[in-house]
Amino acid sequence: MIKIDFVKSALTKDGFYLKNDQILKWLYDRRNTIKVNIQKIKFSELVNWGFEKETHNLVHSSGKFFSIEGIKVNTNWGSALEWTQPIINQPEIGYLGILTKKIDGVLHFLMQAKIEPGNINYVQLSPTLQATKSNYTQVHKGNPPNYLEYFRNRTSSSVVLLDQLQSEQGARFLRKRNRNIILETNEEIEIKEDFCWLTLGQIHHFLGYDNVINMDTRTVISGIPFGNYSRDTINLYEAITPMHSQDLEFSSGMFLSAIENDNHKYSFEEIISWITELKSKYELTVDRIPINELKDWNISETKISHKDGKYFNIIPVHAEIENREVSAWTQPLVESVQEGIIAFVVKKFKGVFHFLVQAKLEAGNLDIIELAPTVQCLTGNYRKGMNEYEVPFLDYVLENMDSDKVKYNTYQSEEGGRFYREQNKNLIIDAGDDFSEDLPENYCWITLNQLKTFIQFNNYLNIQARSLISAIKFI
Amino acid sequence: MIKIDFVKSALTKDGFYLKNDQILKWLYDRRNTIKVNIQKIKFSELVNWGFEKETHNLVHSSGKFFSIEGIKVNTNWGSALEWTQPIINQPEIGYLGILTKKIDGVLHFLMQAKIEPGNINYVQLSPTLQATKSNYTQVHKGNPPNYLEYFRNRTSSSVVLLDQLQSEQGARFLRKRNRNIILETNEEIEIKEDFCWLTLGQIHHFLGYDNVINMDTRTVISGIPFGNYSRDTINLYEAITPMHSQDLEFSSGMFLSAIENDNHKYSFEEIISWITELKSKYELTVDRIPINELKDWNISETKISHKDGKYFNIIPVHAEIENREVSAWTQPLVESVQEGIIAFVVKKFKGVFHFLVQAKLEAGNLDIIELAPTVQCLTGNYRKGMNEYEVPFLDYVLENMDSDKVKYNTYQSEEGGRFYREQNKNLIIDAGDDFSEDLPENYCWITLNQLKTFIQFNNYLNIQARSLISAIKFI
Repeated sequence: MIKIDFVKSALTKDGFYLKNDQILKWLYDRRNTIKVNIQKIKFSELVNWGFEKETHNLVHSSGKFFSIEGIKVNTNWGSALEWTQPIINQPEIGYLGILTKKIDGVLHFLMQAKIEPGNINYVQLSPTLQATKSNYTQVHKGNPPNYLEYFRNRTSSSVVLLDQLQSEQGARFLRKRNRNIILETNEEIEIKEDFCWLTLGQIHHFLGYDNVINMDTRTVISGIPFGNYSRDTINLYEAITPMHSQDLEFSSGMFLSAIENDNHKYSFEEIISWITELKSKYELTVDRIPINELKDWNISETKISHKDGKYFNIIPVHAEIENREVSAWTQPLVESVQEGIIAFVVKKFKGVFHFLVQAKLEAGNLDIIELAPTVQCLTGNYRKGMNEYEVPFLDYVLENMDSDKVKYNTYQSEEGGRFYREQNKNLIIDAGDDFSEDLPENYCWITLNQLKTFIQFNNYLNIQARSLISAIKFI
Repeated sequence: MIKIDFVKSALTKDGFYLKNDQILKWLYDRRNTIKVNIQKIKFSELVNWGFEKETHNLVHSSGKFFSIEGIKVNTNWGSALEWTQPIINQPEIGYLGILTKKIDGVLHFLMQAKIEPGNINYVQLSPTLQATKSNYTQVHKGNPPNYLEYFRNRTSSSVVLLDQLQSEQGARFLRKRNRNIILETNEEIEIKEDFCWLTLGQIHHFLGYDNVINMDTRTVISGIPFGNYSRDTINLYEAITPMHSQDLEFSSGMFLSAIENDNHKYSFEEIISWITELKSKYELTVDRIPINELKDWNISETKISHKDGKYFNIIPVHAEIENREVSAWTQPLVESVQEGIIAFVVKKFKGVFHFLVQAKLEAGNLDIIELAPTVQCLTGNYRKGMNEYEVPFLDYVLENMDSDKVKYNTYQSEEGGRFYREQNKNLIIDAGDDFSEDLPENYCWITLNQLKTFIQFNNYLNIQARSLISAIKFI
């Protein structure tokens, strides 16, 4: 029942509250109305943040929010068997919550035009509620986040549609997770400034634009299930799709992959066995070390950076934003030293699209490996031949990047509350028949329906895989 | 297809290789044939084991196998918010593997009459292969474990029927897991001494005896899925069950609970939401500390023990066993200071048995909580009124322990390779209508079919819950 509501909302390409062009104008207006000023500063200019005496960890004076710490990693995976790096430690589980409501029978999602200090274009569409535990328990003594009460004090007038723990970037966060939650209410909802109702189809539409839908929205909607193949679902799809003609072959194929629960290359048990084998074989040991004992990393007045300028920097910034709970503050951010690439290669088996999924070990993973896109060089140098190690399928992706095999191609941002203007190329490439079947041991073909099943459980799909999946539209 | 084979084997109460009474005689003979001698010794008498100078951790000279270490635990769960304790650290993932083969069309499991130093009655039926990574990479330079080659070098003549990572006791092990794997082969298999083919129905039969089926077997078979409700499965059940009459009401109800995937009190999504809520609310921080800095624990010549004699001791033993790879050795074992109780309360909703499941936080859990039996006081004092804190539903279980509501009642052992003669009371109690519907926040009613789905994924059901589930027979 719930799932068919999601399907219906996903197939509603334009909204009943605001039309797509109105939303674009509204976002543009918000961007111009609100004053934003982000400045890189020195560590010594941080307020309420500082390096702890013993560990040299970068912490908030309250002991809350997050801290920048050092880790030493040992593994038998890949070619780098031991390294040290800074990492974000934020042990609390926060809310990424979307409030939904039926308008004229179609589920609409309450989205916020939210400014984050690290956003490349300042304003992006974020979930209704985006709050760390420190936020909503009000460590910084600001106003409580909007709509918090719907999530914290649930009443009988609201129903949980989705409620999952999902991981963040394992290369940057130490075992960080958020609570991804979607509620449906039948109450009258006051629409506050900066908020707006969108259908899931509209969110998918704006995922075709660069940097409009923020990472937090993407992870929440990635978990939405569309149910298994049924006559009702197919009838609904066929009733709506004839109105739209363009590019429908790929989209309808994706819809089938999302609901087909019978035809797949590998059974669910086989995929679990593949994951079990890898988790048994590979080890990941992470020890926390003082940040000033990191090998190959330097701490200057203005940044913590790798000695060869690789990977990422930790930088202190001063932020002034007018529509935030607190309008001016300082904080550290992570600054990637180069753009990344995130790509899924897809291919039909038995008439159903399968995703070429990579099992990937990252230092901050809770459970050794998570399922990742075919190619994910988030911080590596992906220009051909300049990588430190070979990235499987990278050449294939680079060679086909401008071909008509590319079915999805945008830039999407990392979360602007922690990452400074970081965007990554997001690609979905339909390989057709032109693709080798020989896979490295950590790759497997999986349908969208199977991926949606894994997403329900903790720590199976990583945030990059979820981000790409969130962008898949059906019409 | 695979699942119906499991059903068929579960419904085959006596075997084609050895009959149940022959197996009992064989076990009795093995027990008398093999010489066993287990002695408690002093720590100073341990060979190749010793306390590390700095941390005082108890480690093997190879750095392999396991070690006894100290942890400091902080949580906001329950009444004890901070404590220290010794814990077993064994970061490797070992094999618990069962080789199966069809004999006259029915799947038989290759079981081993295995002696472990801590076993209460020395010999118990264990999986075909029970080996830590140190074992099978032969750190102790003994012979390789029997049948290892079937699991390590799999050929096209074997099929994986089950392959899951499963957790061990969170109160005693730091995030320890094993690879639970079942293979089916169609090759001719040499039956070595101490090995024997049993149907799943026979294993269930012997789970009605005290301490015959070891913990490792119980965890492997607990993961076996019986599929969803189908006409084929019901026909199979009805074809077999008329031959057996006694006590079938409960067993057939359990069979329905195992395969019914439609009628349940809570949907799968609601159960996941319940788990998400608890994992978001409760925190678990575990820091490793030197074992000689444990508060309230003493280290003497012969044991590490709690100052009030509570919980468990770590004791050094000398073991001499004739059918092991190495026939004499010393090692530390965990000795519980008292017997525990493990009980599931079950009740029908919508005509289908549901299990009253407890979400339980234990220090060694990988992911904060795992699903546990209704009552689990593994090391507590369960005699009424003598517990340090109230255990929900303990009074109910104690009051009904001798009534006809009890449908399963045995003593089962913990794993004899780490635990010294530890057995726990295992109970399943059918509450009927006589049971309050008011549950503490960390309890939920879940069908066996739903539990079997969760088992497939990492770290959802704890080992005590799995142990009880393994004992459920259908005929």
